[in-house]
This record gives sequence, C-alpha cells and structure tokens, in this order.
Amino acid sequence: MLSRITKDTRLCISMSGRPSNIGTRFHNYLYDELGLDFVYKAFAPLDIADAVAGIRGLGIRGAGVSMPFKEAVLPLVDVLHDSARAIESVNTIVNEDGVLHAYNTDYQAVQDLLASHEVDTNLPVVVAGSGGMAKAVAAALRHSGFTDGTIVARNEKTGRALARKYGYAWRPEAGEPTPAVLVNATPIGMTGGAEASALPFPDHIVAAASVVFDVVAAPPDTPLVRAARDRRIPVITGDEVIALQAALQFELYTGVEPTADQVRRASEFSRN
Amino acid sequence: MLSRITKDTRLCISMSGRPSNIGTRFHNYLYDELGLDFVYKAFAPLDIADAVAGIRGLGIRGAGVSMPFKEAVLPLVDVLHDSARAIESVNTIVNEDGVLHAYNTDYQAVQDLLASHEVDTNLPVVVAGSGGMAKAVAAALRHSGFTDGTIVARNEKTGRALARKYGYAWRPEAGEPTPAVLVNATPIGMTGGAEASALPFPDHIVAAASVVFDVVAAPPDTPLVRAARDRRIPVITGDEVIALQAALQFELYTGVEPTADQVRRASEFSRN
Repeated sequence: MLSRITKDTRLCISMSGRPSNIGTRFHNYLYDELGLDFVYKAFAPLDIADAVAGIRGLGIRGAGVSMPFKEAVLPLVDVLHDSARAIESVNTIVNEDGVLHAYNTDYQAVQDLLASHEVDTNLPVVVAGSGGMAKAVAAALRHSGFTDGTIVARNEKTGRALARKYGYAWRPEAGEPTPAVLVNATPIGMTGGAEASALPFPDHIVAAASVVFDVVAAPPDTPLVRAARDRRIPVITGDEVIALQAALQFELYTGVEPTADQVRRASEFSRN
Repeated sequence: MLSRITKDTRLCISMSGRPSNIGTRFHNYLYDELGLDFVYKAFAPLDIADAVAGIRGLGIRGAGVSMPFKEAVLPLVDVLHDSARAIESVNTIVNEDGVLHAYNTDYQAVQDLLASHEVDTNLPVVVAGSGGMAKAVAAALRHSGFTDGTIVARNEKTGRALARKYGYAWRPEAGEPTPAVLVNATPIGMTGGAEASALPFPDHIVAAASVVFDVVAAPPDTPLVRAARDRRIPVITGDEVIALQAALQFELYTGVEPTADQVRRASEFSRN
C-alpha cells in the first residue's frame, strides 16, 4: 500500500545503467521497518546531466550512483567529500537544501571492514583486478595503512598505473604463496559471469593466505570464499561490503543508523 | 508498506509552488486499487527548468503542473496538445520515451462537464474572474459553442483582454438578472480565502440563472453552490472539475480509465 506517501515524503533514488531491485527493496524495507517518511526507487537515466539537474530542481533527497555514472557525476556535484575525492568516484549524492554532496560509501565500507575485522596492517596485500572496484579497494587499503601491496592484473597498463598510484608492485599473475591479505576485486566468481566457478587466485596461493577478502557480493559464497572457509582462513565477503555501504548510504540520506540486525534483514529481503 | 515498489515501478510527480496532499493521495489510492505498478509524489521545485530536465533525464512518467509553473513549462516541453495550446497553459506532462507531451486537463474537464451535463450552448454565459482559471473556462466555453458570453471582472485590463479574445463582452460587475449559465472562476467561496462566505454574483442574479458552475473545489458546497441548490438550479461543482481533471491525468499516465466510483472513492480518500 502506498497510502502513507504524502507531499512531505522524501524521495531517494539510484542511477544506474542497468538497475537491479536490490537498492529499491533494501531502502524501502528499512523505511517501513523504522517508520521513516521516505520512498526509494531505482532509475536508468537517459542523460546523467539532466538527471542530476532533476535531483537539484525537484529536491530529491539522495541518489545512489552506479556504473557507468560514478565518474561522470564528478563535475555535476557541489561538494566532494574525502571518500569520493580519494578515488575520484562517486556512489552517493546527498542533497542538502539544493547543495549536492558526493561520497563513496564503497571505499568507506572497505576501510570500515578492514578495521572491524582487525586485519593487521603489517601484512602484505595482494589485490586481483585493476578496474573501478580495484581502485576503491587499493585506495582504501593504502589509506588504512597497508604499505606492502601488489596489484595482480593481466592488463599491464591499468595494473601498473594503479600500483604506481599507491606505491604498490604490479604483477601479471600471482607470485609465490605468502601469508598475505588476498583481495579479489575482479568479477571472477560472480553469478552469471563468464568465470562464475573460477578462482581469482590459484588454490595454493589461497591456501597460504592469512585473510581472504572477496568484493563479489552475489553469490555471498563465491568459490574463493568457500575455498578460504574450507581452510579456516578468516574471510570478509562482498555481501558485507554491499550491506555496509548501503547502510552508510541509508544513514547519509535519513540521519538514522540502522542496527546490524535490521541491515541483515533488509539485505535478505532485498535479494528475494 | 512500500515493499511492492521495484526498479520497474513508474514514478509520476506533481510540481507546484505550494503542493497539497490531494494529488499524491488520489493517485496512490488508485494505483493500489487498480494494482498498477506506479508511485506518485508531489514536489515543490526549486528550479522549473532543472525539474523538467529531471523528468526527461530520469524517465519520470508524468507530471502534474500547478501554479506558478503552468506557463513556465511551455518552452520546456516537446509536443503541445490542443488542450494546452488552446489556453497556452499546461497542467499535465506525459513522458513518452523521452518526448514530453503537454496537456491541460482542467480545460478538457470543463468542456467534458458542459457536455455531460447537457448545458444548452444557446444560453448566454456569464463568467466571474479573469485569472488563470477564468482563461481556461472562457476558452472551454467558447470552444464548446457558447457564443454569447460576458466576462465579469473588476480588473478592466485583464477582463477586457479575456473578453476580446473570445468575442465576449466585459463588465466590471454583474448586470441584469438573466437565465444564463453563471460560472464562478474566482476564489470567492474558497475555504480559508478572504471571501470564503461570499457569493461571486449577487443573490438576485443567482436566482435567475439556468445553470450554476462553480470551479471552487474546496469546499464542494460553496455558498454559491448552496444558493443554487436551494433554488433547485442545476449545478456543476469544482469538485467535479478537480475529480475529472485528475481522472483524465490518471488515464494519460497509466492508460487505464478509472470508473466513476473509483474516482469518487479516491477523491474522498485524497481529502482526508
């Protein structure tokens, strides 16, 4: 029933090339749960500049930003907060009385999870990937204090560029087994992807790891996560990243911090 | 509960300087009643050009347009339909795959009600008022075939201009009692207005009328409507105008024509 929506209900949206239902269901579930006068809906903008003008002109409260708009919105917002500036990529816009504030809660969530899982910053880190999510992960690792890092990427150009930016090494393939923090920031293991059943690191590398961190969120138990759990290696999952970044967005939009249990139930609801 | 909203749910909005809850409640009630995958919310735009850009850029399905934006959106839309062109005033925008179509369902509703109430077009018409609603009413009367008309307006400039446009006469005050169609297109009789308990025409003029048409919608039984009913003069109320124009908007947005009973219940719900 939509009968509780009024003229004062605040609208939050997402902007994505190919929207999923997850955000819409996650946020609306929590609005109902917490009795907040908000409503949320995903959009696939035809024109990102017009869409951002609409956020400003209509007074839409907040907007999640997904591919392919994360860099395109940089010149369209008013205030770039540290999390967005650190990786020159925006995933959250908050409209404060017509002033558009930009954040990146993916970056923030990776930092927060490294801290809450008490991952030792003296460990070497090995990051697979050199795309958008790898950039957020490498920046979050470096800014969290991990100085000994390696970017593993087949693409030499983007791999070397990312490594150089944070004083990390680059390799085209994983090297020797070490007790490292292994981070998958590629789509390998993702449901429906070309390599859904593959591992982003060879098995003997996984076996030697101290911590495994997979940013792939669907499924929550990727082949990498299962391989690490089988060996009782501590794991951080993409499911945790997506739930935490969504909770951080939720708090930016509403000013209300949902409990871990509420976030868990909203995440479950959003996937059904 | 908002849990039925998904990425595919279509958003319709209204844009107004001072939104009421009526549109939001009317449309959402009917979406629920008819099981349509839509959601509606009123906005008070900060910038009308940005807001219309947002309709286009985000792919918002439709927008009701109220004061003070009815003329301002004319250069911002793509296709001006007859009803909007007739009075150079837009109250409805429909987004067809990025092409913005503009209509005026107030004008359309006045025409439809004159026809459905079978008002004789040979009768003289006397219209009180020369503002935005009076323009819609005068145009609808003239285009419905009423050739003998008088505009009664204290403002000589706007009164004369409106009268001249449709070949009607102008008078600063009502003249002799005649068996005319009396139309109130002023705010006189409106709840909370400065003249909430006043009549727009002197009592002896009302007593002689053949039909009384009041465009004031709140309250539905204005002093004018009550005075006419007491004398068993046929009445068309502003309540009918607002419900019919909203039903016409609803059909333009959704392609679904609600029944008269559904419109009546949605109107009642929207006022509570």
